[in-house]
Amino acid sequence: MPDDEQKRSYEDLEHEVARYRAVYDVMRALGGTLDLDELLDLIITRITEVMDADRSSLFLIDWEKKELWSKVAQGVRFMEIRFPMDLGLAGAVATSGEVLNIPDAYDDIRFNQDFDRKTGYRTRSVLCVPMTNKEGERIGVIQVLNKKSENPFDEEDQELLCALANQAAVAVENSQLYEDQKKSFISFVETLSTAMDARDPITAGHSSRVTLYSLAIAEELEYTEKQLAVLNAAALLHDIGKIGVPEVVLFKDGRLTDEEYKVIQTHALHSLNILDKIHFVREQKEIPMMSATHHERLDGSGYPLGLRGDDIPEAGRVIAVGDIFDAITSRRHYRDRMEFLKVLKILDEESEGSHIQPEFVNAFKQLPLSRIVKILEEDNSELVPEEDMLLFEKISLSTLQVLLEKEEDALSSEERNLVERFMCAYDRCEDVNRPDMD
Amino acid sequence: MPDDEQKRSYEDLEHEVARYRAVYDVMRALGGTLDLDELLDLIITRITEVMDADRSSLFLIDWEKKELWSKVAQGVRFMEIRFPMDLGLAGAVATSGEVLNIPDAYDDIRFNQDFDRKTGYRTRSVLCVPMTNKEGERIGVIQVLNKKSENPFDEEDQELLCALANQAAVAVENSQLYEDQKKSFISFVETLSTAMDARDPITAGHSSRVTLYSLAIAEELEYTEKQLAVLNAAALLHDIGKIGVPEVVLFKDGRLTDEEYKVIQTHALHSLNILDKIHFVREQKEIPMMSATHHERLDGSGYPLGLRGDDIPEAGRVIAVGDIFDAITSRRHYRDRMEFLKVLKILDEESEGSHIQPEFVNAFKQLPLSRIVKILEEDNSELVPEEDMLLFEKISLSTLQVLLEKEEDALSSEERNLVERFMCAYDRCEDVNRPDMD
Repeated sequence: MPDDEQKRSYEDLEHEVARYRAVYDVMRALGGTLDLDELLDLIITRITEVMDADRSSLFLIDWEKKELWSKVAQGVRFMEIRFPMDLGLAGAVATSGEVLNIPDAYDDIRFNQDFDRKTGYRTRSVLCVPMTNKEGERIGVIQVLNKKSENPFDEEDQELLCALANQAAVAVENSQLYEDQKKSFISFVETLSTAMDARDPITAGHSSRVTLYSLAIAEELEYTEKQLAVLNAAALLHDIGKIGVPEVVLFKDGRLTDEEYKVIQTHALHSLNILDKIHFVREQKEIPMMSATHHERLDGSGYPLGLRGDDIPEAGRVIAVGDIFDAITSRRHYRDRMEFLKVLKILDEESEGSHIQPEFVNAFKQLPLSRIVKILEEDNSELVPEEDMLLFEKISLSTLQVLLEKEEDALSSEERNLVERFMCAYDRCEDVNRPDMD
Repeated sequence: MPDDEQKRSYEDLEHEVARYRAVYDVMRALGGTLDLDELLDLIITRITEVMDADRSSLFLIDWEKKELWSKVAQGVRFMEIRFPMDLGLAGAVATSGEVLNIPDAYDDIRFNQDFDRKTGYRTRSVLCVPMTNKEGERIGVIQVLNKKSENPFDEEDQELLCALANQAAVAVENSQLYEDQKKSFISFVETLSTAMDARDPITAGHSSRVTLYSLAIAEELEYTEKQLAVLNAAALLHDIGKIGVPEVVLFKDGRLTDEEYKVIQTHALHSLNILDKIHFVREQKEIPMMSATHHERLDGSGYPLGLRGDDIPEAGRVIAVGDIFDAITSRRHYRDRMEFLKVLKILDEESEGSHIQPEFVNAFKQLPLSRIVKILEEDNSELVPEEDMLLFEKISLSTLQVLLEKEEDALSSEERNLVERFMCAYDRCEDVNRPDMD
């Protein structure tokens, strides 16, 4: 009961209750996730509703690059968009920190009509406010478009959106801290596996390539972003157990004795034991089993556990395909790089022999050749002529296999050229330092 | 403007505005941190204010262990307290999920008077509500004590506290996700450094012990929890660069040639190069330099960068003390464990010779002997008789040094006993598997 304070009108109070209720609802919703992609999506959806607008967008400020950026949903993935920080109405708010409330965007010269022109949308009313964090720093802008009531946005809307934007800023910053922590984890995993592989020139880059092959297969299998992220970590870590195999055996130059081969095989069990000691977050709890089962075989003849079929985690079965492919396309101490047709035939045999999953080998073979060549070549992919890469984009691994299996004079000149271009790229992979043959 | 809906009283609206405003304020504050300790502290402080109560507490439910737990500030640290989940009023709410609003706690048999008896506090009114997350699961309880107005808590208070508790639940869960991610990172660092050290029995446990010595010194220097956490990671990673040193040199049995010694020394630069590739979160950005400078010397004669004095990160100077102490108290391929008085004298020499920081050596020597013995002994510290450990709690490393420097017949029988007990523990460290001498 206000006594000394001036009594406010009933309508004022009603408006304030309505505003608080809206902000409260949005705040509760924003608390629902720390995933930045989901959060940005959620903010947009809820704010569009609450503001009774037709569309909304949120842009974050990258002060270093002086850019605004955002992520937009593209099916199951999110795509990042970026533009200079002074572009359009959003840019004006990002730069000045002032609220813009414009009844018709086309009356304002700062409005960038490009987007409307491209999409056929007609922007009318625009309300654009800065997102300010608890330290008072501007971290982004939110803009809502075309108030549904046909009236432009009013003072009340402006206040409400500012409250929402500042709350969104807090949620976004928390989510960024969380994402930063996740990024730190995976970068440590990456750096570590790279450093371990780099102990020997022959294994250098192995875990990274196996991971890229595995992710490529998983994309064919339509994994979600989250599933891909877990697979990424599991694949990078698959050989972590090699830290438990003495280098004198692991990097032996020449044929291995049976005894030594057994010692090498212990790496998979070491991977399991080491990874089992790590506290993984909830969605990563399966990583130890995913990583450690890359030498299991569908028929149960693999190691370290002799699992069969579906008892082998799917990720382990995917990594197995990438691991074999990398093993037989890399030079080893005891073996030179293999002829490529033989590589593909080995994949077929392993698949037919119930070692690796036929569906995953097929998914792998559906990949465009360009993707495989980029992984095979790693940092040296610039050495492959651009026109060859364009050629490789149009043909899958399985189509290449058909060509390789034909007699040479059964090939059209176009086909023969393709095979030759590929062989040249593949040979260069074998020894990037050999003298240029021009 | 409500038309079809029944018009509410002015006072109702006022109350609602006041409640929303309070919740909004608390929510904004809760958004301010993802650090669980800080967050719990913040919730308690803000809720005590808003509820006009004398005290509040928050307990989280550990469903696995059927316990309630909380953290309470103890100077710069936080201490965890735990009790069975059905104890007291908080336990009743945790178990049933129902709100308890009690005018005088002493009239309720469920109230546990122990705490009041111990502290002399007199609990009167108690309002205790469950914290429910967005999935509707109970994750904790919040209780507020002794409403200041002398009246007990009313219906209005009850509604407000429930809203606050549910909002707190969301913030706590986000913070737990974040902390879980941090825990995963450090557990990976720990597991990895342990696995690397375990490649050779002689270095097994080295990084872990160096880390424990460094943390012990840092506690003497009154580091905060956050500073200790960063030091913990930096110390665990100090030898990560050994992955770049061939095992044939790193684990050579016997004296090293000058050439081999130089190869071993490259590990510090490898540490820097590897760690520089990792994306560390903001508060950990200094870890690469902290880790890699553990062989620098104050006079600039160290490696890999030849830094001097304060140019060496403080953490690097702290780790240097722990590293030297562990090196000279461990057996090495080329050297047996050193006599303990000599160990202490080497620390003095290194300190006087402007290699390591005298203040940090002093801090180290102020530590109770029991702490040192526990680290030296690791998993075998149970082998040290409990009464010996109690003895070691009362004496510092520097006092031990005074005793060791005296002629044996200048020692009192008590002092002689102490020295003997320590020597026995130290010798056992040297070979834990030797036959029992009873």
